[in-house]
Amino acid sequence: MDPFGGRAVLVVGTGLVGTSLGLALTRAGVDVRLADAKPEFLAEAIRLGAGHAEPETPAEPAALAVVAVPPEAVATVVGEVMSGGRAEYATDVASVKVLPTTQVRERVPDPGRYVGSHPMAGREVSGPSAALADLFAGRPWVICPDDGTHQQAVTRALAVARLAGAVPMTMTATEHDAAVALVSHTPHVVAALMAGRLAGAPGHEVRLAGPGVTDVTRIAGGDPELWTEILTANAAAVRPVLAGLRSDLDRLMSALEAPVAGQPVLRELLRDGVDGRSRLPGKHGSARTEFGTVIVAVDDRPGQLAALFADAGAAGVNVEDVRIEHSPGEPIGLVELDVRPGAEDELTGSLRARGWTIRG
Amino acid sequence: MDPFGGRAVLVVGTGLVGTSLGLALTRAGVDVRLADAKPEFLAEAIRLGAGHAEPETPAEPAALAVVAVPPEAVATVVGEVMSGGRAEYATDVASVKVLPTTQVRERVPDPGRYVGSHPMAGREVSGPSAALADLFAGRPWVICPDDGTHQQAVTRALAVARLAGAVPMTMTATEHDAAVALVSHTPHVVAALMAGRLAGAPGHEVRLAGPGVTDVTRIAGGDPELWTEILTANAAAVRPVLAGLRSDLDRLMSALEAPVAGQPVLRELLRDGVDGRSRLPGKHGSARTEFGTVIVAVDDRPGQLAALFADAGAAGVNVEDVRIEHSPGEPIGLVELDVRPGAEDELTGSLRARGWTIRG
Repeated sequence: MDPFGGRAVLVVGTGLVGTSLGLALTRAGVDVRLADAKPEFLAEAIRLGAGHAEPETPAEPAALAVVAVPPEAVATVVGEVMSGGRAEYATDVASVKVLPTTQVRERVPDPGRYVGSHPMAGREVSGPSAALADLFAGRPWVICPDDGTHQQAVTRALAVARLAGAVPMTMTATEHDAAVALVSHTPHVVAALMAGRLAGAPGHEVRLAGPGVTDVTRIAGGDPELWTEILTANAAAVRPVLAGLRSDLDRLMSALEAPVAGQPVLRELLRDGVDGRSRLPGKHGSARTEFGTVIVAVDDRPGQLAALFADAGAAGVNVEDVRIEHSPGEPIGLVELDVRPGAEDELTGSLRARGWTIRG
Repeated sequence: MDPFGGRAVLVVGTGLVGTSLGLALTRAGVDVRLADAKPEFLAEAIRLGAGHAEPETPAEPAALAVVAVPPEAVATVVGEVMSGGRAEYATDVASVKVLPTTQVRERVPDPGRYVGSHPMAGREVSGPSAALADLFAGRPWVICPDDGTHQQAVTRALAVARLAGAVPMTMTATEHDAAVALVSHTPHVVAALMAGRLAGAPGHEVRLAGPGVTDVTRIAGGDPELWTEILTANAAAVRPVLAGLRSDLDRLMSALEAPVAGQPVLRELLRDGVDGRSRLPGKHGSARTEFGTVIVAVDDRPGQLAALFADAGAAGVNVEDVRIEHSPGEPIGLVELDVRPGAEDELTGSLRARGWTIRG
């Protein structure tokens, strides 16, 4: 099971990602060495079972170093680890790839022994105590080799991704950075700027907020320091996406200056939105499926959800997805159950027969 | 129970909102008359039980007409209904309020017998067959009287809102339009423009999309025709919100031109986003509560959710909210259970003891 043949993996940096990886690799039977400039992070990671402290003079270098430090520090740490004989190969897990791979190529003597990578997983909390052994389970883990990369570096980085339960994929560093600018960094900017509009708004306006604006701004709660670093490090890839967005915003605002004459532009931009939305991967990576939805009014008492799911299960209908909407000022929740198309009637009938209030 | 003392309520326009209101009022024991220029909509609404066709020569006028037609048609229909003696008072349910209230004041002989209103409820599907008797349950229903409005018009509109299960509140038409521009129309624009960026993107970029961009763009799937009408009708209130957004976007884009020097601006804008996000109402209209979260890995088989909720219920812990994340390419789901702060450990222990895989 251990593709490193009993040799150690070194994790440098025991924040959320490094400690989570240590937990996952330890669980998979890998000998994990841990290092961190912050002694309290290292101690917490060890206490949680993410590995043991890197020996001062290890008997042999680790098979791979996973460098889990901020993007701008990656090249320095990779250089230290490789020149000090602490690991044969190295990868990193930073959320941008052009910056660290370029800097490693410029600064590290044998850059082919390094390959950049990025597990697409995170939480809104940070530090070793937020670590989860399953953080990477089922998530994409992008690996970015270039022409000079040793195959062995890629093989070992792939092994780490698989042992952590992630779904590995490869692309160039430039492709990666453009992709995350589009699907992660720009959405964060958009959510933050929309949420920023709410910051100074009168209370009676905010009181009318419903599930729509709540969805749009959900990720805006992320750590401003972390996101400042991410946007700074990937500025070159984020700028063109924001420029395209701004151009569309200008067109829309012009259309609103002469609302009736501007309707064709509004319609076109809104249709583009529907098209783009339909391209997002749905369940299991397949194209988005339209589910049937059954909406049930549920009292806000312990055990109500359990009873509802038990009754749905008794109806023999698999619930594919579920959302709960809470009503302002009312001790009632609306539970939306997504089921395969066509199963709505069956589920509705069965739940009604068991006394549930179905909306509509 | 019937605040209209047995007198009828007339609903003009039997689309999603009109038919849903007919169902709700009928269920509450009100005599509901229905009218629609489209005979097939009227027939469907009657078939669903939303009321009966308005008699050609009713014995007495309805106590209130609820005009459920597009914003630009409201004043004409209100004028027809009142001058024809079909109802004593009138309200509408359009999603903007300045346009119809201004036009009613200009065009209708006795405008004080009309009051504008707006139930903050909807679905992404339309037409009478999408109607739900509970569409308005627990939702805000804004009523917008002005100095000339008869108290009886307000009283009757409030009665309709309450009978439909909504939470009535009053503000001026201008306040209403500014509020929905901020919390509904601008978020829709933002979601649509972000989703539009995905429309032409390469497949390998879209494949990296995760829950963040999915949340941000969720409402972008709404009907482009309907949203073109809404944005056109409320252009005056949407423009200043978008102008503020664009000004922030420009500042952020300038900061990204010189990323390191620009970091203070990035940090400030991202912090504004965190502040704005924290103002959104949480469960039951109270301030947002931080819940504890327990994440459970669940096989994608029928009955798994039912079993999970049954076991959570057996642990005596009330599940406050739930989200399901599907992993790309894997037949596994991660179910996030929100519980009151402090109850995580209890639930985690209890679920582990019952054989569930808890993340971390």
